[in-house]
Amino acid sequence: MRKYARVSATIADLLRKRSLQFPRLLSSSPILDHPSSSSSSSSSSSMSSSSTHPVSLGTINEKVLKCEYAVRGEIVTLAQRLQEELLAKPGSHPFDEILYCNIGNPQSLGQQPITFFREVLALCDHPAILDRSETQGLFSTDAIKRAWEILDQIPGRATGAYSHSQGIKGLRDTIAAGIEARDGYPADPNDIFLTDGASPAVHIMMQLLIRSEGDGILCPIPQYPLYSASIALNGGTLVPYYLDESAGWGLEISELKKQLEAAKSKGINVRALVVINPGNPTGQVLAEDNQRQIVEFCKQEGLVLLADEVYQENIYVPDKKFHSFKKISRSMGYGNEDITLISFQSVSKGYYGECGKRGGYMEVTGFSPEIREQIYKVASVNLCSNISGQILASLVMSPPKVGDESFDSYSAEKDGILSSLARRAKALEDALNNLEGVECNKTEGAMYLFPRIYLPVKAVKAAEAANTSPDTFYCRRLLNATGIVVVPGSGFGQVPGTWHFRCTILPQEDKIPDIVSRLTEFHKQFMEEFRD
Amino acid sequence: MRKYARVSATIADLLRKRSLQFPRLLSSSPILDHPSSSSSSSSSSSMSSSSTHPVSLGTINEKVLKCEYAVRGEIVTLAQRLQEELLAKPGSHPFDEILYCNIGNPQSLGQQPITFFREVLALCDHPAILDRSETQGLFSTDAIKRAWEILDQIPGRATGAYSHSQGIKGLRDTIAAGIEARDGYPADPNDIFLTDGASPAVHIMMQLLIRSEGDGILCPIPQYPLYSASIALNGGTLVPYYLDESAGWGLEISELKKQLEAAKSKGINVRALVVINPGNPTGQVLAEDNQRQIVEFCKQEGLVLLADEVYQENIYVPDKKFHSFKKISRSMGYGNEDITLISFQSVSKGYYGECGKRGGYMEVTGFSPEIREQIYKVASVNLCSNISGQILASLVMSPPKVGDESFDSYSAEKDGILSSLARRAKALEDALNNLEGVECNKTEGAMYLFPRIYLPVKAVKAAEAANTSPDTFYCRRLLNATGIVVVPGSGFGQVPGTWHFRCTILPQEDKIPDIVSRLTEFHKQFMEEFRD
Repeated sequence: MRKYARVSATIADLLRKRSLQFPRLLSSSPILDHPSSSSSSSSSSSMSSSSTHPVSLGTINEKVLKCEYAVRGEIVTLAQRLQEELLAKPGSHPFDEILYCNIGNPQSLGQQPITFFREVLALCDHPAILDRSETQGLFSTDAIKRAWEILDQIPGRATGAYSHSQGIKGLRDTIAAGIEARDGYPADPNDIFLTDGASPAVHIMMQLLIRSEGDGILCPIPQYPLYSASIALNGGTLVPYYLDESAGWGLEISELKKQLEAAKSKGINVRALVVINPGNPTGQVLAEDNQRQIVEFCKQEGLVLLADEVYQENIYVPDKKFHSFKKISRSMGYGNEDITLISFQSVSKGYYGECGKRGGYMEVTGFSPEIREQIYKVASVNLCSNISGQILASLVMSPPKVGDESFDSYSAEKDGILSSLARRAKALEDALNNLEGVECNKTEGAMYLFPRIYLPVKAVKAAEAANTSPDTFYCRRLLNATGIVVVPGSGFGQVPGTWHFRCTILPQEDKIPDIVSRLTEFHKQFMEEFRD
Repeated sequence: MRKYARVSATIADLLRKRSLQFPRLLSSSPILDHPSSSSSSSSSSSMSSSSTHPVSLGTINEKVLKCEYAVRGEIVTLAQRLQEELLAKPGSHPFDEILYCNIGNPQSLGQQPITFFREVLALCDHPAILDRSETQGLFSTDAIKRAWEILDQIPGRATGAYSHSQGIKGLRDTIAAGIEARDGYPADPNDIFLTDGASPAVHIMMQLLIRSEGDGILCPIPQYPLYSASIALNGGTLVPYYLDESAGWGLEISELKKQLEAAKSKGINVRALVVINPGNPTGQVLAEDNQRQIVEFCKQEGLVLLADEVYQENIYVPDKKFHSFKKISRSMGYGNEDITLISFQSVSKGYYGECGKRGGYMEVTGFSPEIREQIYKVASVNLCSNISGQILASLVMSPPKVGDESFDSYSAEKDGILSSLARRAKALEDALNNLEGVECNKTEGAMYLFPRIYLPVKAVKAAEAANTSPDTFYCRRLLNATGIVVVPGSGFGQVPGTWHFRCTILPQEDKIPDIVSRLTEFHKQFMEEFRD
């Protein structure tokens, strides 16, 4: 395995290496090649000239320039172009369709929505049909009942009205009850902020916490690029901590401490710790004991714990279970005044995979009333999140129960999706580990594989010649040869000199054998072509 | 009329007065009383102490502190409290219900959604019923047909999948065709960015344009506080231009020029001009000729024109018509390379009033491909807007046509809402103008009245004693006495020494007489109490 090119780098070297591929990373230089934004006063004269365009790359917000979001980056743009070419000229590429494995978007790959959820949404969209006799034949009785319950929680039953800026109170009650049932500890509906997916919630917190480049946010590497993008847009500093690939992407407290101290010694004021559990893109599920250590670390160091728990329903191994950080901290005896904790949840993931509905929430605990007011104010500027997404967030936290008419079909749909995802994860993991120069950790949870690829020196040099990173070079070749879209590891961060890609486990099961054979075939040819 | 307290202020005085009520206004000092954020290095030590809370008003982003959003500000918070008290203890206040006239939220006050739109949304939410025979009895045939058309525009018919970050291509085609039909000039679907209501679109543009406090955005005063809030959150400077109340809230080019020059002389780099047409909170509809002057001004001065056109369907006077700024600029012979223009549209307003659906779009013209890529990148960080909102945005730009089964009922619903809004606007305007010391311009369009109130000196002093602004004092008294919620003019900006409030025209028509009598009675008593 070690015959492939690899820069041997210890964790300790990393801060000095400046080679992670996203902006405003602690100690890294900006990677984008663009004219620096001119100062306000000096560009003032050009603004009043009608011959110069008022907006150019040199005159926009530099934070926007520095922001990167690889999940919809250059490889995906290329894929969209290939798809258009295939449509315009079938047979123009060595594949018939583009397989989007770049993003956790289950329904785009054929996953069907949970029927009960969609029934309730449709009825809430058009309540006029609730009393019609035909509706009894079309919809399950518990969906009709639930729609009535939800409508009764909305003032005037107006699903077309702006709600409270935290979301409809009755839906927050339902969600709080769901959290309580999950954790065994109380949840307060006033702590819930419903949002259009989890992303806007993350932005709100970053906006609140980051004052300048002097403020740092501890983020796992590899990380989901929403975090690097949001930190860049808010002008803060990403303080990386490295997950240990050789220990199944383990999270070591010693690494957290080391990176925190390193950041402090550079004058960075570290404000929060991001933990993604189950991990994205890494797929690991944290052990309960590890979570206790993390809570203790945040408490000791006075850090806000930003817990990305959007994959809480996506666990595929029998020996791991999801525990929310709120449950863990409460079980340690830490209450609201002891630890500041935000939990992010989304309707886009889980077995529901309702990405297009843009529903989600954050549970905000441990802040003073004054800070809560500030969070409310920022949320209120956009008035509220979409009501269908709000309703769906309440449904995923309170699905049909034993005895409900829909329970059996709901359970069958849910179990079918989750068990199939587990099989797909295993099949792809095995296939990847069978490839020459590829090592892939188990996907315990979430929706991704993040294999490491040991690329031949010749391939690394070819990438250099093509002015791109070796992993991007590999992913572009893969796409052009097979139509399979994956995201280069550089978009998530990786130990310098190591190369990875992120691939979802989401293609439908009947497509997996074909994907495996296309991937295997491509990889063999690639290795032959670039063998040192 | 002039016997009431009024600080005589010419427009020319205003920049020096520093008395507008929002932050980072050119020449105004911050209004919030809070400890300034401590520097990164000095607060670093407190962060590592577990006894100090990691987040306090003194350690959050100052831009968040400075942001204000009056439409959901203190008066609304008080109203929510009173509503809870009424619920817990009926009869505890001199009114039975809270009347929310603070916000353009039609369905919260009883406006019914357009049936055709909701039918299509419900069918797209639960396509499984499209083929069922019962569905023919429940839904109109053209709604079923439209749902099929829309589903066929979505890859895999997956309404639960993330879409392209600009929105589903087929829906953008429909919207572009709708714009073309409205304006008589071509529209490009690639110029459309679908967003969760118009607010996120405004944030994207502010984020792009604002680099620092040295960058200014020309905004009308009074303005919709989304603009002041977004400028504050992005750290820019609001450069005010004053609408002329005595000329029906007219927009004078000479005023634009004066304020632009004043800003430039202070070293502010003015980047864009916000125009809200029809006006919010002011209700005026710009004349075509005035719009040409505005386009010419932006072209000459190299300003981006940010056109808030969300009230394009809300016009109540026969002598005014809506003209989009794109149509105006194209009619002047200016193409994509001549003028940089963003048009904001929303499903929340118009006759549809679908606030809870969070649909909207911006049409982005006149940027280079490189800048368009940056806008796309920022949009992509949140993946996409919600699909129901996207579908609805396509529906409002392409409603039923003559000959469609739903056309007659659709037209009746639409005309019923718009003609009723016109009657309500007139009734409230007349009632306000009948009050002692109140002057109210005509609501030509949009959804609001913005009356000026000439308050007695004694009332101004009472407000001072209560440590609040006179208009807030008046609005709080009004709420406590009548349950009517309006927003103080200070949240929108007003000529210093003048006082206003914003009141929507949205309460259902049968409630208007009661509102008028409660308002009239309160106002009489207020004037008696504080008569000088």
